[in-house]
Amino acid sequence: MKIKYIFLVVFSACSFSGFAQSKIEDSLMFRKLYAEAMLKGKSYENLEILCNTIGNRLTGSPQAERAVELTKKMFLDAKADSVFLQAVKVPHWVRGKKETAKIILPKQDLTSPAAAGKYYQAKRTEFSTEILALGGSIATPEQGLRGSVVEIKNLKDWDKIKKQQVEGKIVFFNQPMDAKTINTFDAYGPAVKQRSMGAIMAARLGAIGVIVRSVTLANDDNPHTGAMRYNDSIAKIPACAISTKGADLLSKLLAEEPALEFEYFMYCNTLPDVMSNNVVAELKSNFNSESKTEYIVTGGHLDSWDVGQGAHDDGAGCMQTIEALRILKAVGYVPKRTLRFVMFMNEENGLRGGEEYAKLAKKNNENHIAGIESDAGGFAPDGFSFEVSEKQKEKLKTFWKYFIPYGLHDFNREGGGADISPLKAQGTAVFEMMPESQRYFDYHHCELDTFDKVNKRELEQGAFALAALIYMISEYGL
Amino acid sequence: MKIKYIFLVVFSACSFSGFAQSKIEDSLMFRKLYAEAMLKGKSYENLEILCNTIGNRLTGSPQAERAVELTKKMFLDAKADSVFLQAVKVPHWVRGKKETAKIILPKQDLTSPAAAGKYYQAKRTEFSTEILALGGSIATPEQGLRGSVVEIKNLKDWDKIKKQQVEGKIVFFNQPMDAKTINTFDAYGPAVKQRSMGAIMAARLGAIGVIVRSVTLANDDNPHTGAMRYNDSIAKIPACAISTKGADLLSKLLAEEPALEFEYFMYCNTLPDVMSNNVVAELKSNFNSESKTEYIVTGGHLDSWDVGQGAHDDGAGCMQTIEALRILKAVGYVPKRTLRFVMFMNEENGLRGGEEYAKLAKKNNENHIAGIESDAGGFAPDGFSFEVSEKQKEKLKTFWKYFIPYGLHDFNREGGGADISPLKAQGTAVFEMMPESQRYFDYHHCELDTFDKVNKRELEQGAFALAALIYMISEYGL
Repeated sequence: MKIKYIFLVVFSACSFSGFAQSKIEDSLMFRKLYAEAMLKGKSYENLEILCNTIGNRLTGSPQAERAVELTKKMFLDAKADSVFLQAVKVPHWVRGKKETAKIILPKQDLTSPAAAGKYYQAKRTEFSTEILALGGSIATPEQGLRGSVVEIKNLKDWDKIKKQQVEGKIVFFNQPMDAKTINTFDAYGPAVKQRSMGAIMAARLGAIGVIVRSVTLANDDNPHTGAMRYNDSIAKIPACAISTKGADLLSKLLAEEPALEFEYFMYCNTLPDVMSNNVVAELKSNFNSESKTEYIVTGGHLDSWDVGQGAHDDGAGCMQTIEALRILKAVGYVPKRTLRFVMFMNEENGLRGGEEYAKLAKKNNENHIAGIESDAGGFAPDGFSFEVSEKQKEKLKTFWKYFIPYGLHDFNREGGGADISPLKAQGTAVFEMMPESQRYFDYHHCELDTFDKVNKRELEQGAFALAALIYMISEYGL
Repeated sequence: MKIKYIFLVVFSACSFSGFAQSKIEDSLMFRKLYAEAMLKGKSYENLEILCNTIGNRLTGSPQAERAVELTKKMFLDAKADSVFLQAVKVPHWVRGKKETAKIILPKQDLTSPAAAGKYYQAKRTEFSTEILALGGSIATPEQGLRGSVVEIKNLKDWDKIKKQQVEGKIVFFNQPMDAKTINTFDAYGPAVKQRSMGAIMAARLGAIGVIVRSVTLANDDNPHTGAMRYNDSIAKIPACAISTKGADLLSKLLAEEPALEFEYFMYCNTLPDVMSNNVVAELKSNFNSESKTEYIVTGGHLDSWDVGQGAHDDGAGCMQTIEALRILKAVGYVPKRTLRFVMFMNEENGLRGGEEYAKLAKKNNENHIAGIESDAGGFAPDGFSFEVSEKQKEKLKTFWKYFIPYGLHDFNREGGGADISPLKAQGTAVFEMMPESQRYFDYHHCELDTFDKVNKRELEQGAFALAALIYMISEYGL
């Protein structure tokens, strides 16, 4: 009994001191990672190179291929232990010539008493408006598509719409994002359905085209593109995004003159699939233990829409991913688990890169315990969302306190990134970095998503946050 | 005993239901205030008017006076119960013609072996650099001020500097803000001393001029001005800010060629004091109770530096103040206490408006229980800092939980705004809104502080936060 008692005392003293020590070590490591990120950060200059020398990089474009080569080199410069490409067959949609559109009011006597006071009365009978083809849309006929317009102000009203109201017409989905929602991502979900599903919904009732209000909270002339779907059993109709100011104008004119027509020209086309790549870098574990067979993967998506520069979406997440590797290596961290860093190809219109990565991970029997994504903009990080088991949630609570001094405070949201969702389906715990959300949708999928919209420190803080989470999971597992 | 028992039960039931009810009412009021701010907000368009029609507005300038008239009208449009001006005698410093400066390397044989490899060797022997006179500085002599340069890289080294090292020279204070500090306001404090005190420190040891590294974390060509002090018993010497890129260049050249000289021309001048105004609006309390004799004052400062547009500093805080009044009125809130909303004049170079307000409050025997300021930029609000009694701190803990769902989470910082510091000295509890801090000093006191740097939703969220805090203090006191 006495011996046993002594053992117990020694053991608990050790574990207590071990715990205390590790807490200090972790805090010190956080400080080192933060200092490295803020004093010697490379993510901002790397993002400038990506944005200003390559620019936007839609899957299948020559720019996307140049971005593969560029980020491979960036990984090597960041001192990755190894870098390799994963071949991915990807879709290839092209926009073609710039789209045009106009609103045409019926001919009438503008001097008549009926016209007095109407919005357009003092103006003109044609209004040009900015549109962008939605990604994946078919083109309009060569002579353009022209038709009268049915406006849907609230998607909830759609179920009441009858075929005869819509048939042969252009459906105009005009539900705004809800400005009184606090986190803008929560406002995105309900509004984006009209973009992704609008063409199917409208064509099912016989519509000939679809116009979608840009999914943004900004009030300006920039149309925002994004992915849309067709259903093979339903007619494909041309789908475009209209700017929020254009949408408001169209709505106003429709209220005064329901017989107006909308005419648009789009030149987009879906070409045969082509080959592209994920770019994968590794920091190897030198520990001789079970843990080294566990993988932690972190990434962003390298492709972007074909307008703007894909700076926040998702050049920022890609550069932060490369930077997380650089920081961890620069401070001399020796990982207990195998760390992967991935530039996923084709998040925007296919997710083929994420799917291929997960497929290969499974095939190669790589035990991915965690997937981390940065794809919500290069703004100051507020926290992480995640989808993990209840037991993992408890363990994570011991991690989050280290992040609080660095401004990360929100660990209550659910969700992981799109590119790592195929891993989630295989049982991997997934995380997404949640930056301050107010500005994201101002720039999202439009001409405004350019390098000058990114703040250096905010971007660097995000890179630190990724590195810090990778460190904690690498040290303690999940 | 029985009767007493019944009373107790009834009393506690009432107080419990009263508590529960008030919690729901408060949550609902927060929602109403938020919806009003985000759906019908006026602060963004008001800020555009202030910035784009008036622009910057240094105390004493015609623009400052136009801003007084403009914001008086804005208060009336926001449905203030009353608006009045408080006369304030203010300083009147003018910049005059644009400053110029150059770094001059000594003449030498650039083909000599000694010059090989030096930074300037392949370049030239004169480098123009961007400067701004610091606010309050005297001009240089008409023929400019030229002298050799002593660089101080760290203010901690100053105590070791001897008179003979500095006498007859120009002191170049070149301590950067510390980029690894998390909240940028914490990095500002240690670095700003060289700007405010540099001229006194240098002149005390016989220096003829002073150059100060711009107090910003950005690396660019924009010099940042700001207030500086003289001491009447020590010689006044011309003081300028140099851009961070200019400072780095000067430092590099000094390392190669310590004998270089700096020459600058400044045309600034301090004119006699003039009269200006604080703009004060009121929402009266209709409650017949003691509480209506308690005042809650909220404000920003209307003056700005004379470069850029004073958008974040502090047009944002002013427009949020007016908007807080508008929101509270628009949702039909009837205040339990008297609410004041103030455009303080002369925060940047004198604080005379804040001092005058406090003086009049005391003279008129107005019991100011709380002063709230917004003067840290129109970015997404993170929380409030405050200086209150321990008892008040406990009470405030019951307030903060209502703010959490709106993204405000940080209630751990100490401090109130500058304009309300004279009230604090009279015993008033003071608060300052703390927005996300990363971008603030990029724009602060320089040409970049313009309307386009402000995000609509972030600005509006700040106005909501002010209104919500005013509401809570108005309802429950401190």
